[in-house]
Amino acid sequence: MHYPEPIARLIASYMNLPGIGQKTATRLAFHTIEMKDEVVNEFAKSLLSAKRDLSFCHICGNLTEEDPCAICRDKSRDQSTILVVEEAKDVMALEKVREFRGLYHVLHGVLSPMEGTGPEDINLASLISRLHNETVKEIIIATNATTEGEATAMYLSRLIKPAGIKVTRLAHGLSVGSDIEYADEVTLLKAVEGRREL
Amino acid sequence: MHYPEPIARLIASYMNLPGIGQKTATRLAFHTIEMKDEVVNEFAKSLLSAKRDLSFCHICGNLTEEDPCAICRDKSRDQSTILVVEEAKDVMALEKVREFRGLYHVLHGVLSPMEGTGPEDINLASLISRLHNETVKEIIIATNATTEGEATAMYLSRLIKPAGIKVTRLAHGLSVGSDIEYADEVTLLKAVEGRREL
Repeated sequence: MHYPEPIARLIASYMNLPGIGQKTATRLAFHTIEMKDEVVNEFAKSLLSAKRDLSFCHICGNLTEEDPCAICRDKSRDQSTILVVEEAKDVMALEKVREFRGLYHVLHGVLSPMEGTGPEDINLASLISRLHNETVKEIIIATNATTEGEATAMYLSRLIKPAGIKVTRLAHGLSVGSDIEYADEVTLLKAVEGRREL
Repeated sequence: MHYPEPIARLIASYMNLPGIGQKTATRLAFHTIEMKDEVVNEFAKSLLSAKRDLSFCHICGNLTEEDPCAICRDKSRDQSTILVVEEAKDVMALEKVREFRGLYHVLHGVLSPMEGTGPEDINLASLISRLHNETVKEIIIATNATTEGEATAMYLSRLIKPAGIKVTRLAHGLSVGSDIEYADEVTLLKAVEGRREL
């Protein structure tokens, strides 16, 4: 005997999620059956709604219910600074800090010659067209500190600087609360390179 | 700014699953948005279908699409032996072994005085009524090797033995492929107690 078909289908669906293998999927499926009807209905609705009701802002590429997104619509934000990130979730992580009050631009990827991702495959053209707006004075590049992220930062910097716009990069160094002993070598190197006078 | 409402709802739904906290739920939610429409639709459908199309077999308490379940309907199985388990998933784990050819009974829980679970709170009455069937000759108790599982096994044994039915318990001992060095003390004790002549 195998699993009854509805539960086998649910296990297969859970296995489509990242980091969830057969055992975890089975555990989640059996747990789902024991959950209340309304909780499961809400789960199914939220899955469909997340796919249906969210789209990307045509200006910055951020995930949003309304186009343009709340950040692009907010005229009280600093219109002279654009912070460039790889993914929409990076915007939300930065917004939690409540420090940055400028605008964002989501690339939806990074340049990666190995995977054949070139400048035309990421959300770059719309960033360039935003720069023609005279109010933009600074571009902060916040791609991840990976090989691709660094390469993308370099590419963007060379593309944008000639237009007379200041290009900066988020600081790399030791995490707050971390132990120097356990920091990896590249992070330590960046921390030394980026040292500041007290 | 917080997450757009559809994604916040999806994160909350993922957090209802066991072992999934805020960070994992957020990762899963963003991954969901990037999945194909049909995959997400199938996921939502399988959630609803698992809740709607599955019920418990009125004879053995197993999860099934049709009542009675495939095992109870299968007359080629050994009708004289009933294996008692705690949960429906235990039936599926045992069926994978393809060794046991008798019937099952799912208790949907164990006796637990600490949590106020008494004999009337688990699927016990229907097991007793099955014993009135003269073909039942052996009850194999396969509750888990926890305090509650052992207590339930003892309780069942005292309840059923007087009816002249053989009551057995699954063997406890070392896992196959495990190292004696790393086995816990109770398992080692059970392994010594349950030693067999070669």
